[in-house]
Amino acid sequence: MIKNTKVNAAILIIGNEILSGRTQDTNTSAIAKWLNSIGVKVNEVRVIPDIEETIIDTVNHLRKVNNYVFTTGGIGPTHDDITAQSISKAFNLNYEIHPEAFKILETYYKVGEFNEGRQKMVWMPRNSNLILNPTSGAPGFNVENVFCLPGVPSILKSMLGGLKNKIIGGEPILSHTISLKTVESEIAKSLTNVQNDNKDVEIGSYPFFQAGKLGVSIVIRSEKQPKIDKCSSEILGFVNKKKIEVIDR
Amino acid sequence: MIKNTKVNAAILIIGNEILSGRTQDTNTSAIAKWLNSIGVKVNEVRVIPDIEETIIDTVNHLRKVNNYVFTTGGIGPTHDDITAQSISKAFNLNYEIHPEAFKILETYYKVGEFNEGRQKMVWMPRNSNLILNPTSGAPGFNVENVFCLPGVPSILKSMLGGLKNKIIGGEPILSHTISLKTVESEIAKSLTNVQNDNKDVEIGSYPFFQAGKLGVSIVIRSEKQPKIDKCSSEILGFVNKKKIEVIDR
Repeated sequence: MIKNTKVNAAILIIGNEILSGRTQDTNTSAIAKWLNSIGVKVNEVRVIPDIEETIIDTVNHLRKVNNYVFTTGGIGPTHDDITAQSISKAFNLNYEIHPEAFKILETYYKVGEFNEGRQKMVWMPRNSNLILNPTSGAPGFNVENVFCLPGVPSILKSMLGGLKNKIIGGEPILSHTISLKTVESEIAKSLTNVQNDNKDVEIGSYPFFQAGKLGVSIVIRSEKQPKIDKCSSEILGFVNKKKIEVIDR
Repeated sequence: MIKNTKVNAAILIIGNEILSGRTQDTNTSAIAKWLNSIGVKVNEVRVIPDIEETIIDTVNHLRKVNNYVFTTGGIGPTHDDITAQSISKAFNLNYEIHPEAFKILETYYKVGEFNEGRQKMVWMPRNSNLILNPTSGAPGFNVENVFCLPGVPSILKSMLGGLKNKIIGGEPILSHTISLKTVESEIAKSLTNVQNDNKDVEIGSYPFFQAGKLGVSIVIRSEKQPKIDKCSSEILGFVNKKKIEVIDR
């Protein structure tokens, strides 16, 4: 994998079911974790409805301001699956049968089962690169820096591995978490000082209430381990002085 | 509540922890369900990092193209909580101590516990309306059509009830789900026909794999019950003809 710092991406979740609250999106977290591991930082996430014009406009914006765009949803066989035709229009490409995808599904399904609904899934922007689907056959596709994945989380996750060689990441983003038995207000000032002394490190503070325990997780993120170690030791310094209990580090 | 059709909203999730995949957002679904119940449709969701300029630009865009904007996150006591100061800048309002919020927290905390960190939480855009917090004291705030809520899901949920009278919704969006023991490709064509005959109704098709069962949920959404009933009966019509098993309706 070629190393290249500051590679970023946007995730575009396409689907009315997320906007209505009916379905809890979990794809953002799965894609973001995977991207982090290969050195790609997620700049923004958008959730938009199944409306062609909205998909076209959003994809055309996001692909210009990010190194990569990952879409989820809208590539199945039903009438509300309009991602492939919308991406075709966004790139001014013909929306047509992809011969390789056709062959894959013709082989995947038994004779007579490759019906009209399933054949819709091989219509893609002309000359798309396929993203293979080891779970349920129907591939996703990639045009330039836009990668279109399905909405079903288990299928999506199974397809990420196959994408690895298509994404040129930067240095992996490392993180270290220190969990404290305290409240944010007790450490806010000291933490601000550490952040001000280490401006190129991302320090987040997240209160939690779990299993009856109340605490704060401090997450330190950087591409450089020594920078994380320096922040970590400064934080543990003031934590010791304040006699705050460290739950986990 | 005044009834008014086609009221829409955007949800803006502010926080690096969602973009890194560390934290699974659940606030979108909670807010969206609640908004649906009072007749407000969510047009889009965005997740953005804790960067002032990004927050200002995004809020200023979203508040112009939606009836309401709901933000979550970034209103706690630590250095990475910059929502209140960013919203102040977005509206060109002073960022200052809110006297009523100050009184609330002064009463909420024991003598000596209302420290500098906690006092940060009463800094808001001048003349904000408070959104009361029955769980942990520190209020959210509202400026014009922008409502700023905390990121912790349990606290956020407890604050939604108090917002009800501040939001003028349209007709509640009704929905009906029909779950079938089938695959999408079997019903795709018939479902397209129903959608084409009922263009003002939103019909979604969502495959599921649950507890060893494979099926499809068809979700019909409209503000008008008779329209939902008409679609529902048309769908059950072709389902019966095709001898597809209805799991739930």
